[in-house]
Amino acid sequence: MTVGDRPPQDPLRCVKPAVRAAKAYTLVAREAPVKINQNENPYDVPEALKDRVLERARRRPWSRYPPFDPADLLEALGRHAGWRADGILAGNGSNELIQALLLATVGAGTRVAIPEPTFTLYGLLTSILGGERITVPLAPDLSYDAAALAAPRADVTVVCSPNNPTGGALPLDALRGLCAESPGLVVVDEAYHEFAGFSAVPLLGHHPNLVVLRTFSKALSLAGLRVGYLLAAPELVREVNKARLPYNVNFFSHDAALAALAEAGRLGENVRRIVAAREALFAALRGMAGVRPHPSQANFILFELDREPRPVFDRLYARGVLVRDVSGYPRLERCLRVSVGTEAENAAFLDALRAAMAEAA
Amino acid sequence: MTVGDRPPQDPLRCVKPAVRAAKAYTLVAREAPVKINQNENPYDVPEALKDRVLERARRRPWSRYPPFDPADLLEALGRHAGWRADGILAGNGSNELIQALLLATVGAGTRVAIPEPTFTLYGLLTSILGGERITVPLAPDLSYDAAALAAPRADVTVVCSPNNPTGGALPLDALRGLCAESPGLVVVDEAYHEFAGFSAVPLLGHHPNLVVLRTFSKALSLAGLRVGYLLAAPELVREVNKARLPYNVNFFSHDAALAALAEAGRLGENVRRIVAAREALFAALRGMAGVRPHPSQANFILFELDREPRPVFDRLYARGVLVRDVSGYPRLERCLRVSVGTEAENAAFLDALRAAMAEAA
Repeated sequence: MTVGDRPPQDPLRCVKPAVRAAKAYTLVAREAPVKINQNENPYDVPEALKDRVLERARRRPWSRYPPFDPADLLEALGRHAGWRADGILAGNGSNELIQALLLATVGAGTRVAIPEPTFTLYGLLTSILGGERITVPLAPDLSYDAAALAAPRADVTVVCSPNNPTGGALPLDALRGLCAESPGLVVVDEAYHEFAGFSAVPLLGHHPNLVVLRTFSKALSLAGLRVGYLLAAPELVREVNKARLPYNVNFFSHDAALAALAEAGRLGENVRRIVAAREALFAALRGMAGVRPHPSQANFILFELDREPRPVFDRLYARGVLVRDVSGYPRLERCLRVSVGTEAENAAFLDALRAAMAEAA
Repeated sequence: MTVGDRPPQDPLRCVKPAVRAAKAYTLVAREAPVKINQNENPYDVPEALKDRVLERARRRPWSRYPPFDPADLLEALGRHAGWRADGILAGNGSNELIQALLLATVGAGTRVAIPEPTFTLYGLLTSILGGERITVPLAPDLSYDAAALAAPRADVTVVCSPNNPTGGALPLDALRGLCAESPGLVVVDEAYHEFAGFSAVPLLGHHPNLVVLRTFSKALSLAGLRVGYLLAAPELVREVNKARLPYNVNFFSHDAALAALAEAGRLGENVRRIVAAREALFAALRGMAGVRPHPSQANFILFELDREPRPVFDRLYARGVLVRDVSGYPRLERCLRVSVGTEAENAAFLDALRAAMAEAA
């Protein structure tokens, strides 16, 4: 029973206590000339790719459902990632597949190990599903502590690698050990893996308890179209598929994803450019008084200030630079997060940060 | 604990028993010259509408997330439906909002009343979430039995109206009574309401325990783009919103939905044409020996045969006409479902059905 002691017909009477207690995932929508707050790719997909997808959309009846079984997309994902197509699910962003996976595996009392700090959605969904959330702190330097992750012997262990918002990745050796030691599932959210240069996918064949999640929103420049995918053992994929909603990938996103996979080589050049820019940005931040950047293998950098971060965030915004205030996360009270933009955007950010720090000094 | 007695690292060890026991929502993908199996709208959106949406998409960076808060869409939905924008959520099809609603309200032991037969997703999600599914049979003529729906005094009562796959609707008076008598939420899935000509939305202001779900997939001809919405009391919407995934409506579907709302008058002409064709189709089926159609307020007709339906389905398909075999649903062992197509499609279906019935006689 979830019905509380509220009067009949009070609509909140039937809302689960975990939901009432949860904070919504919120983001104050802001625009800015230099918008580097959402880890978006600063480089759009090529015009020619857009034209191909738009032309296909023009010819297709919009009144007809997308394919029930998006076999062509799953095959293309399999070739791209190096894994069997019957071990892949596509979704409306990787978030939807995290949700389907947790729906299929987490109920009352299921023990879910989640690092802290990390992307908030894992913990929110675990709580809503009645699972027991086991918080595993990152190491003092905010890198992953592999032994701590394995220690709870949880039913499900979620690892965002590279981690959002801290930027560190769990090395493959450590992940291999975690899969071998864990009695349950190990879920690696690889949203940013292209910027780290390595992936957990080669371990899938050796560790049937490993699940890998990926997205088209970062390296592949399709955040606006929401496509993600899940890779795992086919027998697990069949079960998670029962908790996936039918027709979850619309025809336009489906076609755009196929087009992006066909251009993956060209989109990879953007990734190399972003990685080079990240290293330059890291060096510049390290040279700035009062600023301590954390090493990142993603397309963003977490940096700690020697003072309250909110006034600095506000001054950056006043100068037209929008970053992410992550000071509400546990242990990140003095931190902001900046996405790696174009070289010009990064330069504008550094100028604005220098000025903001000087003003606040 | 969901971990069963399977060995460590067996990926199925962590899958919930309700998921293992569930049948996946499956559909054998088939094509046919006359495809009237998915309750799709036979009339595509106007070319000019497509062009406007495509042109917007060409100019927009695909690498940027959709709006975090789709305020313009919610405002337009509010004007279209006649309800306040802060009492509306948009989703990736109405299925996603059913899922978010049940995630927010259904946990171990929550009592969920679900008619039978109806759309299978409600029961599947209820089971996966650990809820107790209370099956409420339709009346002997497959119409709704309002008293039976109210009797369990469930935490959540789900009513698909008009009902898929039977076609009958719950009259507004009966719905009003159900809302007044029910201690919990009453969820009306109105996917087909435009074809019935009435809606539960005017009751929202009087019954804070009422939730209405709608879709762009049927009357508004956007099945390919997956847009749905939920209408309820703002305080309930705020809670369900916590279980909704961020960025769930991609920019293309968002823009297409806005464009369809702007053309709602013109799309309404298609609805009138489909309703007229449904009545003609119903009359033709009623005049056919061995066929008993059920009255429908949707864009499809359920019809019962005097014999096994599968051979008839197969003969229709061999003639290029694809309908839906719903004989696997409880109580529909002798039934098929046909979507109302264009006048030409309906004529082709009737010809094929006459031939199929004659062959099988």
